[in-house]
Amino acid sequence: MRARQQIEGTRRRLVVIGGDAAGMSAASAARRLQGPFELEIIAFERGPDTSYSACGIPYWIGDIVGERDALIARTPAEFRERQHIDVRTRSLVTAVDTASRQVQVKDLDTGQAYPERYDELVIATGSEPVRPPLPGIDGDGVFSVHTLADGAAVRAALDAGGSPAGGGRAVVIGAGYVGLETAEALAGRGWSVTIVDQSPTPMTTLDPDMGARVVAGIEDTPIALALDDAAREIVLDAAGHVSAVATKSGRVLPAELVILGLGVRPAVALAEAAGIALGPTGAIAVDRRMRTRTEGVWAAGDCVESLHVITNRPVHIALGTHANKQGRVAGDNIGGGYSAFAGVLGTAATKVCQIEIARTGLSTQEAIEAGFDVVSASVDSTTRAGYFPGNTPICVKIIAERGTGRMLGGQIVGGAQSAKRIDILAIAIWNDMTALEFFSADQSYAPPFSPVWDPVVIAARKTHDLVHQDATRGGGPD
Amino acid sequence: MRARQQIEGTRRRLVVIGGDAAGMSAASAARRLQGPFELEIIAFERGPDTSYSACGIPYWIGDIVGERDALIARTPAEFRERQHIDVRTRSLVTAVDTASRQVQVKDLDTGQAYPERYDELVIATGSEPVRPPLPGIDGDGVFSVHTLADGAAVRAALDAGGSPAGGGRAVVIGAGYVGLETAEALAGRGWSVTIVDQSPTPMTTLDPDMGARVVAGIEDTPIALALDDAAREIVLDAAGHVSAVATKSGRVLPAELVILGLGVRPAVALAEAAGIALGPTGAIAVDRRMRTRTEGVWAAGDCVESLHVITNRPVHIALGTHANKQGRVAGDNIGGGYSAFAGVLGTAATKVCQIEIARTGLSTQEAIEAGFDVVSASVDSTTRAGYFPGNTPICVKIIAERGTGRMLGGQIVGGAQSAKRIDILAIAIWNDMTALEFFSADQSYAPPFSPVWDPVVIAARKTHDLVHQDATRGGGPD
Repeated sequence: MRARQQIEGTRRRLVVIGGDAAGMSAASAARRLQGPFELEIIAFERGPDTSYSACGIPYWIGDIVGERDALIARTPAEFRERQHIDVRTRSLVTAVDTASRQVQVKDLDTGQAYPERYDELVIATGSEPVRPPLPGIDGDGVFSVHTLADGAAVRAALDAGGSPAGGGRAVVIGAGYVGLETAEALAGRGWSVTIVDQSPTPMTTLDPDMGARVVAGIEDTPIALALDDAAREIVLDAAGHVSAVATKSGRVLPAELVILGLGVRPAVALAEAAGIALGPTGAIAVDRRMRTRTEGVWAAGDCVESLHVITNRPVHIALGTHANKQGRVAGDNIGGGYSAFAGVLGTAATKVCQIEIARTGLSTQEAIEAGFDVVSASVDSTTRAGYFPGNTPICVKIIAERGTGRMLGGQIVGGAQSAKRIDILAIAIWNDMTALEFFSADQSYAPPFSPVWDPVVIAARKTHDLVHQDATRGGGPD
Repeated sequence: MRARQQIEGTRRRLVVIGGDAAGMSAASAARRLQGPFELEIIAFERGPDTSYSACGIPYWIGDIVGERDALIARTPAEFRERQHIDVRTRSLVTAVDTASRQVQVKDLDTGQAYPERYDELVIATGSEPVRPPLPGIDGDGVFSVHTLADGAAVRAALDAGGSPAGGGRAVVIGAGYVGLETAEALAGRGWSVTIVDQSPTPMTTLDPDMGARVVAGIEDTPIALALDDAAREIVLDAAGHVSAVATKSGRVLPAELVILGLGVRPAVALAEAAGIALGPTGAIAVDRRMRTRTEGVWAAGDCVESLHVITNRPVHIALGTHANKQGRVAGDNIGGGYSAFAGVLGTAATKVCQIEIARTGLSTQEAIEAGFDVVSASVDSTTRAGYFPGNTPICVKIIAERGTGRMLGGQIVGGAQSAKRIDILAIAIWNDMTALEFFSADQSYAPPFSPVWDPVVIAARKTHDLVHQDATRGGGPD
């Protein structure tokens, strides 16, 4: 029997900073390849939880998901017991010394600070919500929707009620994924909701014509839109509680609750202070194996930038799917395996009330900026055979390269059963298919699931028909 | 102004035999490229309708679709008026003389026979239901579900009622797509339904383990199964009406209605009599441009065989999606364009009650027969995030080549929102992706639409993990 003392001396130690998707995926993947006698794993998480679904928080706020703990995929105790990962929650890493391979940790419960050495370090510090320097932004009643604690705070505010008459008025600043999903949640709880956004259409990862379809859809919901406008000030009452949002155009929107949905930026302060190189997007630069440019330091998740598979340029797109995969890649490599992250297309989906929204690849603007001459076509159809009950409208847009017909991007706005079709386009674009090749491929059909020509297939055909048209003859975005 | 007489002498004539998906797609595509002064188009259809959704007939029988005419995509009058296609319904082509380029036509209303010459001929005679030589098969109350007339006959039988007590008992012979869909329709109309099939599991285009999941799902429906058995005789009463189905195992299943759901075979009698070459599957042999081996004769739809994109071997798979595309290819080429049919994967979907079923590519057995050494993995998961309401179970199976990991086939059995995922796998397989490449590709995630690792993605990972295992170490189908 080997004495523990001896093993301590020879086994490597992996330290992970951040106990959510990327960090715990890295820890788990490394553990899969190396047992606790070979590799010691310590994961520091400043919050109380590990591996929770940030994407589920709006649904918890909206009472669609009843229990907070339902959002937790795996608890610290489970990581400890099943995988011998020493998860330390409420533990903030305050500094990294890459020369001596040490991190400084602060126990947020006891206030104690202590160092830990590492052989391999994974930085998975995630992202943080954008907080513009608006007057009043630190007032009571202003929330982000980023952590479970944020979710709990919003729920408490909802439970406390808004106006004396009950219910309440909320303003959501920002019409991106989190803004729309949270607006739906608040409306579902009986609150009056207005979304303010500086763009003329929501979801700026969509082309404006597709964004306009989202606007049209939202008109059938209880959610109000104040677009092409921006929050100028969050007005607070004497007690420091939010009472309204004033906009640049002069609107004053009374509110007891303000949600910040302005997107996220990579949380890189710790890495930057440690001298770990950032890339042109401001996120941590990593190679395909998720190595930073500093020996022994890896990074994964919302804090890193990735290569876009079409442009081959670095982009910062914060999505849980990428975080999981990147974490796994880092862990595989740390554990002695070989694994590479293949890059991103920015495939994403959401819904607001009954409107499903999805996108993949480049938008028209992004494609033009990347140097492509583009054609695009959109098609209005139905999610099922025209005669089949339960049908909902769907619009599919495809963006392709003029001349070659190579598909560059796809966007979908529609009713139930629309969004998941984006993955069909994502896989096609991932494989450099042309619109004609995609049109020709063998896809399924049955009346309950699609028209005989699925909307994505018709959109491809319509796009193909424009591919060889001369730019001067038209055939641009429609 | 050019006299019509002159034009008649110089313009080409396209004759189409069969006025459904393939035939009318060919006629429309040719017309798109050549106007009526260049190309005269005559389409003969023996039934009264054109371009109807055969796939919708079970839903019409089941009263899910209320109106017969809802199933008709375009009427003969619309083809005549909008596209100058001379559609002649109730007109049976009885013979083709490829030497003199003439067809013999019989007007089924007047009984008159007459010839028509052609420059180009498209044979789109479709398929016909398999009718085994069972005693009693020609009795009253025995129906196929193939044409709108069949649908009307079944509806009339249902409306007339079955047993004196009302409602009725039906036996469906054959547990393929049409059998399952019609069983659902009959059960929905309040009939007791038993499906008889000689295989131990339904849907023999699925692997047996996936078929077993369909069986388990059907156990929660009112539909009874008599599997691993086969109809031996349709028992008729003194008036010649069906009274029961007797099976090989000795069961006697009382019934007032029998549905034949034994699949289809290509309707090639006319082509064969004209000396047009058939291929090894018994369907008409065509090249990629849908040319038969006889000058001036094209063929498309259920009557032709196609190349399977994985095996490159001819297969006969009768699907409306292929018929539409093949017809369009033939018409493009006849109209002076260039178009090629890319081949098939056999991607198909259906549902029976709440069970969605889909498949693409090769089954395990088909892959082995094609010479592949296969690995496969199946995954049980949910269609939405585990915590999200409205979740249903889904099982995804992926079949891949050992060693390379190239994906060869995919199968899905699950609840609502399962089936359409097959197209994600179909596009991946179409592009020769390996399981690892597919796992790595950027797919969408949002809690209402999928778990953070979609079931198709997990199935790919699990398949990949087996790809490099030695055959002797296991890792075969599970």
